[in-house]
Amino acid sequence: MLYIIFLTALLFVTPSSHAADFCVAKLKGFGGPSGYACRDPAKVTVDDFIFSGLGIPGNTTNIISAAVTPAFVQQFPGLNGLGLSGGRLDLAAGGVIPLHTHPAASELLFVASGKITAGFISSGANVVYTKTLMKGDLMVFPQGLLHFQINAGGYPALGIVTFNSPEPGLQITDFALFANNFPTPLIEKSTFLDEATIKKLKSVLGGTG
Amino acid sequence: MLYIIFLTALLFVTPSSHAADFCVAKLKGFGGPSGYACRDPAKVTVDDFIFSGLGIPGNTTNIISAAVTPAFVQQFPGLNGLGLSGGRLDLAAGGVIPLHTHPAASELLFVASGKITAGFISSGANVVYTKTLMKGDLMVFPQGLLHFQINAGGYPALGIVTFNSPEPGLQITDFALFANNFPTPLIEKSTFLDEATIKKLKSVLGGTG
Amino acid sequence: MLYIIFLTALLFVTPSSHAADFCVAKLKGFGGPSGYACRDPAKVTVDDFIFSGLGIPGNTTNIISAAVTPAFVQQFPGLNGLGLSGGRLDLAAGGVIPLHTHPAASELLFVASGKITAGFISSGANVVYTKTLMKGDLMVFPQGLLHFQINAGGYPALGIVTFNSPEPGLQITDFALFANNFPTPLIEKSTFLDEATIKKLKSVLGGTG
Amino acid sequence: MLYIIFLTALLFVTPSSHAADFCVAKLKGFGGPSGYACRDPAKVTVDDFIFSGLGIPGNTTNIISAAVTPAFVQQFPGLNGLGLSGGRLDLAAGGVIPLHTHPAASELLFVASGKITAGFISSGANVVYTKTLMKGDLMVFPQGLLHFQINAGGYPALGIVTFNSPEPGLQITDFALFANNFPTPLIEKSTFLDEATIKKLKSVLGGTG
Amino acid sequence: MLYIIFLTALLFVTPSSHAADFCVAKLKGFGGPSGYACRDPAKVTVDDFIFSGLGIPGNTTNIISAAVTPAFVQQFPGLNGLGLSGGRLDLAAGGVIPLHTHPAASELLFVASGKITAGFISSGANVVYTKTLMKGDLMVFPQGLLHFQINAGGYPALGIVTFNSPEPGLQITDFALFANNFPTPLIEKSTFLDEATIKKLKSVLGGTG
Amino acid sequence: MLYIIFLTALLFVTPSSHAADFCVAKLKGFGGPSGYACRDPAKVTVDDFIFSGLGIPGNTTNIISAAVTPAFVQQFPGLNGLGLSGGRLDLAAGGVIPLHTHPAASELLFVASGKITAGFISSGANVVYTKTLMKGDLMVFPQGLLHFQINAGGYPALGIVTFNSPEPGLQITDFALFANNFPTPLIEKSTFLDEATIKKLKSVLGGTG
Repeated sequence: MLYIIFLTALLFVTPSSHAADFCVAKLKGFGGPSGYACRDPAKVTVDDFIFSGLGIPGNTTNIISAAVTPAFVQQFPGLNGLGLSGGRLDLAAGGVIPLHTHPAASELLFVASGKITAGFISSGANVVYTKTLMKGDLMVFPQGLLHFQINAGGYPALGIVTFNSPEPGLQITDFALFANNFPTPLIEKSTFLDEATIKKLKSVLGGTG
Repeated sequence: MLYIIFLTALLFVTPSSHAADFCVAKLKGFGGPSGYACRDPAKVTVDDFIFSGLGIPGNTTNIISAAVTPAFVQQFPGLNGLGLSGGRLDLAAGGVIPLHTHPAASELLFVASGKITAGFISSGANVVYTKTLMKGDLMVFPQGLLHFQINAGGYPALGIVTFNSPEPGLQITDFALFANNFPTPLIEKSTFLDEATIKKLKSVLGGTG
Repeated sequence: MLYIIFLTALLFVTPSSHAADFCVAKLKGFGGPSGYACRDPAKVTVDDFIFSGLGIPGNTTNIISAAVTPAFVQQFPGLNGLGLSGGRLDLAAGGVIPLHTHPAASELLFVASGKITAGFISSGANVVYTKTLMKGDLMVFPQGLLHFQINAGGYPALGIVTFNSPEPGLQITDFALFANNFPTPLIEKSTFLDEATIKKLKSVLGGTG
Repeated sequence: MLYIIFLTALLFVTPSSHAADFCVAKLKGFGGPSGYACRDPAKVTVDDFIFSGLGIPGNTTNIISAAVTPAFVQQFPGLNGLGLSGGRLDLAAGGVIPLHTHPAASELLFVASGKITAGFISSGANVVYTKTLMKGDLMVFPQGLLHFQINAGGYPALGIVTFNSPEPGLQITDFALFANNFPTPLIEKSTFLDEATIKKLKSVLGGTG
Repeated sequence: MLYIIFLTALLFVTPSSHAADFCVAKLKGFGGPSGYACRDPAKVTVDDFIFSGLGIPGNTTNIISAAVTPAFVQQFPGLNGLGLSGGRLDLAAGGVIPLHTHPAASELLFVASGKITAGFISSGANVVYTKTLMKGDLMVFPQGLLHFQINAGGYPALGIVTFNSPEPGLQITDFALFANNFPTPLIEKSTFLDEATIKKLKSVLGGTG
Repeated sequence: MLYIIFLTALLFVTPSSHAADFCVAKLKGFGGPSGYACRDPAKVTVDDFIFSGLGIPGNTTNIISAAVTPAFVQQFPGLNGLGLSGGRLDLAAGGVIPLHTHPAASELLFVASGKITAGFISSGANVVYTKTLMKGDLMVFPQGLLHFQINAGGYPALGIVTFNSPEPGLQITDFALFANNFPTPLIEKSTFLDEATIKKLKSVLGGTG
């Protein structure tokens, strides 16, 4: 039949070639500046494009009464090269996602249930933009700026977040300062905190030095 | 006091200058290749970064028993230049978001409630990747590929979608073909559809020519 | 001689390093999000930057009386990382390149001989932009939008196309629907086509399901 | 009718808004880093996406026996923001496009007729990649590198070029040195050319200083 | 003369058009997502590409015994659209540039004189990378990560910094927290600091609320 | 302790995964279009982010009385993927960095000591922008344009340069023409230089052919 000739003429992107459409991550190794190597597209199935982990509440029995469940490229390899990732924020009563940044992405927060007080701080002028969001609200946090999310009700809240990068990163300021071996004299010098405060927070967050 | 000198030295990004952090769209006019002109950052408030329209169910009393509520830069000017947008999909029982593409963005779909059969088709090899998603599932649709979402339960479903562009665009294939003045002979020639089928669909979707 | 010292000082990009100038694709494997690994630049020759396949007419003895000859990175590895690719469209009398998109690139069409009726459809407002092009005309098709090319003379036409990506992809709408195993009930539901039309087109284009 | 409700729900990108699909340049003014402001998409027609100037041979009665006819955004405003541009090279017998670079784009050359000796020189190792191209050949010139095209037959040759930028720029080395007011002592110092050679070339190419 | 014809053919980028090469910022107004509108290239002079402010020591008589002199697009409009900016760090004895991020850029620090202890903290694993740099050392700080610079000698140090953005932004953590009206209860909640510490720092840095 | 649970919940970017923050180059092999593969982030130390080679004066005993010391990704692997690189220009009395381009980057020059006459030439209109820079001056050279630096004092000058790419490339026009095997007839044809001049320069710069 003629269409066979036609199909042959057009199916020039053979199954053994790089996929123009997607590049499901081969997570073995450490990738390169634009992400991970692609898995064989002939072996990719629909399940590579689906992540079910956001349907499961995170464990909020911890000092922040909150949990972040990431759906970044490490958890969801189908995102590799597609410029997006997601996550789930569980905020128990009193829960908080402490002040943090995503070094390489802007963020959208959708409030799926509960009330969340969220905010970010501009650079330069240090303006605080904060408000209590209701169920159904969408808030955008510009790339790289300090921001936070706090449960504003007496009951659990659920946020679904997305980022314009498969690897947005997450730098929680308190952890960057107090949950590692950052020498106390350098912290004192590079912040305006005193030694006692630093040592107290290190003891809470597991820091040394 | 000394800190006043310090503040003066550092607050070099004055309120009347371009905002490095964000660029809330001045929607008047038609923008440029990278988006719209920025509003005066000194007049921007937290409400510019919040969109409440996704909290309101769309009207699904229509031939697709479904509704798309966009939160693109035109509806949510705070997204301008930030590389993200969102939307809400309401699918009544039997509802469908017909086959479509976003010309300039990848998409993440989060199933907030109900069951949704979703899928996309690769280019070149024309492989169909489709599955029925449950509440909490996240699916990624690679940039520019044909995809669809169909309610897979006998009850409403709600999807929250995000895109890695403030203006992802939406091209519904049926609308591109049958809801405008695309001349019937050109449609016949550029698809394999016959005249009768085209005329029937034009009468349903409002097309002429 | 002094210039030898000078040469030594300046030739700091050694033959064993990554080539800043180009990155001819090593097609073995499946690449990464930005393309394929680079071949050893010391073994690259001028022939890696030349592709002669566009000089050969495609076989138009098929149901569309047309042929697409791609010069994408898979056929022309020198394009890897350089942001461009090309192709040749042969349209016999009555020939047509059916409605299609390139998911990741804009397209320029240069009419090298003959007459071609070409067009694209905008997203959102579904405006059809179509015209008959003469020899020497250049038309641009914006990224990701549905478009087509039809021979508008009673004699062969030749188009040379280029894309701003080494892997623009090609998704022919009819093939995405009817040349694979896309289940008929899902096609019915996600388009407005009836079962009989779908089955007829599947039988023509080789689809199953 | 129900479809009217549906249409209303979906046609959310109103004609008065920025066009996600394209951004035809308003050439008045001087643009911004990503190109020119968009014209009102409601007033755009198919002719904005077509350029007929490449169908007309350039005038090769000049010292290089050659002509470059650009189809850059200034000549073809529909290219604005779409990442592509084109041009036509007419090379009479003995014609040459002198050594030049495009500061912001890679180039594809398609030989439409005649024979063209083309080449480029890598940075760092200064390797010359050159060959005589036949009709139908396609050659890629990596971004920013010195390259040239010379008629290799005793009869006219025609090249069609495309670039992955709407404004690739064109810097002809001889013109940059000898067709302006570049002070001769600075040219002597920054090249290895002697004063007599520089003055001779300035007199040929119209330079002063 | 023939070359006049030639010049006319090639000088197609007229002085009234957008400059492909550069886009010196018209700082009036607030720009767009990719920067500011371009000034008339015919009125641009070499002085638009030169900034002399980095030759002048900043005033370090302040609480940090340090000064940052920016050469961002607001101070140096020639940088608009060129993907680079710079700055000068003056660190008197005991001086420090407190913990900060640049939301939209990586940074290179060149130690022009003195000794500087610099460091950054990775996201996720919170690893501290810190070392004392000597004159002539170059250190890179990846995009968006917390970092600091401290004078490590008993005498002044001078750093020259550059960024891969004309508007890198600067968010000093202490200023984002304590030099504005960020409500104390929200700071308490989103950090692990206690009310007394916060109030003390607000009194030092000028914060209210 | 509860914080251990918290830490476990948040430390989801495991040491064996791709580093979102940085991607220190594994220089073995030839990389890909976006740079080199990442080294294991767990084995990266602060020294990977520091380059000390710019503290050492280059050897200016050569025909240009100048030296370029690069700090590109090949010398400084920590730059991989971070969009920046640097270099050191030593200009002895009478020294010059001959006319050259960087095919893939804009450049910032900071005059650390001495006086340097620098300039670049625009494309299209061939305007020369040149001036003598003093210590402390910063000059920007737009991407891909011809430029030069000449010592303007009777004593050494030192320039520190940075680029918005880890691999800016360096194409010295004289070397591209006269320090390789570029056939003399092709040089004659593609420039306006005569055979005697070409042969003289080839003998100086080591060219053949």
